[in-house]
Amino acid sequence: MGILWIVSSGPGSTQQLTPAAMKAIALADVIIGNAFYLDMLEQLLKNKQVIRSAMGKEVDRAREACRLAKDHTVAMVSGGDAGVYGMASIVLEMVEREFPSQEVIMLPGVTAATAAASRLGSPISGDHVTLSLSDLLTPWEIIEKRLGLAAQMGTPIALYNPKSRGRPLNLAKALKIMLTCRDPETPVGIVKNVFREGEETHITTLRELAENDDIVDMHSILIIGGEESRIWKEDEDVKGIITPRGYHRKYVY
Amino acid sequence: MGILWIVSSGPGSTQQLTPAAMKAIALADVIIGNAFYLDMLEQLLKNKQVIRSAMGKEVDRAREACRLAKDHTVAMVSGGDAGVYGMASIVLEMVEREFPSQEVIMLPGVTAATAAASRLGSPISGDHVTLSLSDLLTPWEIIEKRLGLAAQMGTPIALYNPKSRGRPLNLAKALKIMLTCRDPETPVGIVKNVFREGEETHITTLRELAENDDIVDMHSILIIGGEESRIWKEDEDVKGIITPRGYHRKYVY
Repeated sequence: MGILWIVSSGPGSTQQLTPAAMKAIALADVIIGNAFYLDMLEQLLKNKQVIRSAMGKEVDRAREACRLAKDHTVAMVSGGDAGVYGMASIVLEMVEREFPSQEVIMLPGVTAATAAASRLGSPISGDHVTLSLSDLLTPWEIIEKRLGLAAQMGTPIALYNPKSRGRPLNLAKALKIMLTCRDPETPVGIVKNVFREGEETHITTLRELAENDDIVDMHSILIIGGEESRIWKEDEDVKGIITPRGYHRKYVY
Repeated sequence: MGILWIVSSGPGSTQQLTPAAMKAIALADVIIGNAFYLDMLEQLLKNKQVIRSAMGKEVDRAREACRLAKDHTVAMVSGGDAGVYGMASIVLEMVEREFPSQEVIMLPGVTAATAAASRLGSPISGDHVTLSLSDLLTPWEIIEKRLGLAAQMGTPIALYNPKSRGRPLNLAKALKIMLTCRDPETPVGIVKNVFREGEETHITTLRELAENDDIVDMHSILIIGGEESRIWKEDEDVKGIITPRGYHRKYVY
């Protein structure tokens, strides 16, 4: 019996991939993953059997990885952290149902939300909510309910999958919900292609983004500030977003 | 003028530290951080000026890092991801107020929640809430409000700082709030010292943990399952927690 590694490959560049993840890829005979993420790891894939799968094929990919792991060392590569909108859950569902004695080892990685946050200053800093606006696997009513409660929490919110061809209006609906109980001047950070070619960051406000969200695409992560978040400036130059942790409540500095 | 790197050192082991973080530590003349995290990176600190600071000294540490960065290359090391309950926000507050033209570069890392999740199966998988039960910097009433809303969201919840000597009862109060609207049989995963010496994982339920939470200490991360989370078993053997992503709503498999 082989081993099935579920390897989190981080936001893109191999500079953000952990040594443990690299080692698992090096030890594996077979590498399987979404072509988009595998292409960024090209230098690690030489002399390997590589199975490039496509978006939307996650169930088949999970089953194939389990089948191969019966007699191979398999690395299932998943972008960001595999346990957050990644392949970990569907692979374990397969193991649970069809491959119960398969050995599986999970390796964590840098998830897109904290990668994006690092490019924006410190917009998250502490308590926060992580939501996806994709209604492919979660009914939209549930997403709306979660958005409403998250808005009331007053914490920063990291939004994955803010927009895609199939659902161009979800972001506008989400921003409308936010504006029912958040200050329109709440800072919002947008990072496109974080740690990948073509990386872009933008800092705006809920109000401005609700007027025009053309800047957001399917490769973007959004961070909506919390009630205490502010735009960080040097003179008139916008440098990022700061959400204070609360030291000002305890110390004079 | 020097550079100030804010380096996320991940959950502990250098096997979970990114190459970008390692490179920043290698380039720095001065390394400053909480002794607990620096001690785990000992092999990277040879021939460096190392400033070991203590818990509770974050404001002083941030100011000292900024002062040193005027004419040194400084790496401020912060455990997990520096942008999540780490040093990023207080360092940037200092830069904003007192050192406005200081160059700062942030490097993300593996945050404790996803590190812990990887040891428990796939308990987070998608939408989730991240909260800390420490009321040192956030008033307890705000934490309670957030817990109540998070419980209603029905998503998994990652709890940082679930217990400490100074606030041994916060966890019991938090579990009581959870039980007002979550099934008592909701799975709960506990990871102590994730990716560090003495790592332990435990899988229990809200009901059991509310009866006795002695197992939780200040080095633990808790993951409370969502409405769809289940305990993953092989026969009677508990293997982890699975929160399905929702493929079962779209596909037959």
